Amino acid sequence: MKTAKVALFGLGTIGTGVAKILLQHANQIAHATGQPVELAKICDKDITTQRDLNLPPGLLTNDPDAIFSDPNISVAIELIGGLEPARSFVLRLLENGKNVITANKALLASHGAELFDAARKYKRTIAFEASVCGGIPILNALSTALQANTVQSINAIVNGTSNFILSKMENGKISYRDAVAQAQKLGYAEADPAMDVDGTDAVQKLTILAQLGFGAVVDWKAIPRIGIESVDALDFLYAKELGYRIKLLAVAVQSDGGLELHVSPTLVKADNPIARVQDAYNAVRIVGDSVGPVFFQGLGAGQLPTASAVVGDLIDTVLGRTAITFGALNLWNSGNSLIPIKSPAEFFGKSYLRLNVVDRPGVMCELSGILGKRNISIASMIQHEPVCETSGDSAVLFLTTHEVREGDLVQAILELEESSVVLGSIVRMRVQS
Amino acid sequence: MKTAKVALFGLGTIGTGVAKILLQHANQIAHATGQPVELAKICDKDITTQRDLNLPPGLLTNDPDAIFSDPNISVAIELIGGLEPARSFVLRLLENGKNVITANKALLASHGAELFDAARKYKRTIAFEASVCGGIPILNALSTALQANTVQSINAIVNGTSNFILSKMENGKISYRDAVAQAQKLGYAEADPAMDVDGTDAVQKLTILAQLGFGAVVDWKAIPRIGIESVDALDFLYAKELGYRIKLLAVAVQSDGGLELHVSPTLVKADNPIARVQDAYNAVRIVGDSVGPVFFQGLGAGQLPTASAVVGDLIDTVLGRTAITFGALNLWNSGNSLIPIKSPAEFFGKSYLRLNVVDRPGVMCELSGILGKRNISIASMIQHEPVCETSGDSAVLFLTTHEVREGDLVQAILELEESSVVLGSIVRMRVQS
Repeated sequence: MKTAKVALFGLGTIGTGVAKILLQHANQIAHATGQPVELAKICDKDITTQRDLNLPPGLLTNDPDAIFSDPNISVAIELIGGLEPARSFVLRLLENGKNVITANKALLASHGAELFDAARKYKRTIAFEASVCGGIPILNALSTALQANTVQSINAIVNGTSNFILSKMENGKISYRDAVAQAQKLGYAEADPAMDVDGTDAVQKLTILAQLGFGAVVDWKAIPRIGIESVDALDFLYAKELGYRIKLLAVAVQSDGGLELHVSPTLVKADNPIARVQDAYNAVRIVGDSVGPVFFQGLGAGQLPTASAVVGDLIDTVLGRTAITFGALNLWNSGNSLIPIKSPAEFFGKSYLRLNVVDRPGVMCELSGILGKRNISIASMIQHEPVCETSGDSAVLFLTTHEVREGDLVQAILELEESSVVLGSIVRMRVQS
Repeated sequence: MKTAKVALFGLGTIGTGVAKILLQHANQIAHATGQPVELAKICDKDITTQRDLNLPPGLLTNDPDAIFSDPNISVAIELIGGLEPARSFVLRLLENGKNVITANKALLASHGAELFDAARKYKRTIAFEASVCGGIPILNALSTALQANTVQSINAIVNGTSNFILSKMENGKISYRDAVAQAQKLGYAEADPAMDVDGTDAVQKLTILAQLGFGAVVDWKAIPRIGIESVDALDFLYAKELGYRIKLLAVAVQSDGGLELHVSPTLVKADNPIARVQDAYNAVRIVGDSVGPVFFQGLGAGQLPTASAVVGDLIDTVLGRTAITFGALNLWNSGNSLIPIKSPAEFFGKSYLRLNVVDRPGVMCELSGILGKRNISIASMIQHEPVCETSGDSAVLFLTTHEVREGDLVQAILELEESSVVLGSIVRMRVQS
């Protein structure tokens, strides 16, 4: 019986998890694939640090060529992360006849077309379940079981760090800064959590969901994103009054004129399952024309949940299921989008605004005038009494709008911020109808 | 390019949905499979009733042989339901070289080994995503993406009718009888809902989940089941006091000594996602050793959600993914169970009891004596004042136990029911720790 020889690039947290599963569950995986699956080589630039792992001798190398040039290795797992050298390594793996598995959302969001075209050229495959929502088998569902559907919308919590921070702020009634500190202490946030909290990570994952769900090809940098840095404890109070919770949502929704894509803190009705997703959990709600709404929730990060998805891909690749799916889906085909991407200015939707306004007569008239001339109609508004004396001559105003054209709202926000009635920046979120 | 010719047995609600998708989404399905997929023949005993469907002429027949004997038909979909003639038809389809797709949980629960052995003998496949939880791609997840895991437990709401009834009782504070009437009026329950409310449907689906998750082969009739017929509005009140909701749960959990399988109304902590599943929705919570908990929710019944799963299977079968998965999983292999099935008497768990006791001194002593001698320890207890005068000399007692051995509890319940302190039957549910 032939043995499938597998190489691993990157022995960090996830890589160690993958090695653990492959070494400890070897029998189970051989049973699932019908052949032994051998972890043949591991490449990492650091080959001295002791890992929580009993590696057989001779496995670890810091020479990537030892993998590229080994004709016995048929599958390689890329867990380096980031763009380079991950991109070059994946290209060289494909050139050298190896199927690739990756968890690298940044790489796919930036170079999907190049890598998938290369895989097609060399008749190899790329599998990437772990790149979005860790252990939740969401890409698999979109790629296979839900294929009878035209997908109408995807709403997802794809960044566990942000969801942890927002959950702690909401439940513990603590500040953004304190919640970030808690997340860092518990290992849910990096020392520099910028890519998580500013929406970059979520936007990159959204490009992958949009490719699988809608055949969309889009530059992730062009997707409008609002991070969670400006969310305040006060926002949760007002959202609660209105029956909402606040989640960082990645949204892809099909409407007249194409696909709307955006990432932003969003007021979600409290009875929506996605509103109840707590802590570092991820969740995805897909609406298909036949299946209706389907909801998935699980751990979107962490060593073993992510490794579960990687090894799932490995089993698929060894069995040949990946080759069938890869061929059928024809993903990122030369960068051609199967659906037009809507210009952000043309989005329609409800929004939530928090404004610091000067506390004097006539302010409301001026404010509603600026909104009104752009057809922005206010759905709800509240002005709380100043929280403390230092608030001085300003007041915090919360409002939600009816459905408005994004371009009009952006213009109105700019004009308000330049006006004499608004102090500082306006905090803006979306409201899910 | 070759056309995949498909036949359909049974043009009821689901069959009509499948025909709709195949006729209306022909291009999308051809795109997904890389070849035209043609609905070539439909067999139903009723070929005169007008369906909500524009069928091309000549498709409908009442002669099953027209399908068995047609060498051009490569795949057949069985949506007749029930055991016969579904079983004989599936066997004849396999013998005649056709791959089969079925939504028939009763058939698989009763004849899984026979049908799967026949499929292996004739080198054909059976796909059955629609047999459990309609449109939720749960069998697909267990069969492929989660294969790197050892599954530890599956908790599922698999019967939408029961969940609808329980939801209405809880939210509307109405009786079981009124909730059933509502379900019937809205089309969520049959005129005779016996198989749904007595747990039969749930137990049959549980045998399928247990086969995929654990390799268990079990006679569905041997799985202990408690239906929802005895659930009373009062139970929801007491459950709420304790922080629980009541759901009809199908449970498969691995413990020392094998697999515990049971279906019963269950008190689930209100913050568990499965406790919040409302109306006719289905949900499944799987815990894997690597992935941790993964939660799925969606429509478990209905024309198009179920048809979505059937057509998903069809795409898999035409593409050849089903053949790979079918070969790798080796399901219901000659009826050999890969895991021992625990005897119900040996289950361990918490329970909830509602007893009608005579209202006189000394009752509690006798009651706790009967429980105590079998090591059944009471975790909580409440006796409400009689609701109305007609309650007379009896009182309703609610209690929950600590973890107890099932065999001991069953004996204690029998002894209590035969004693002079308890009037009528004891209502018993499980409590999820």
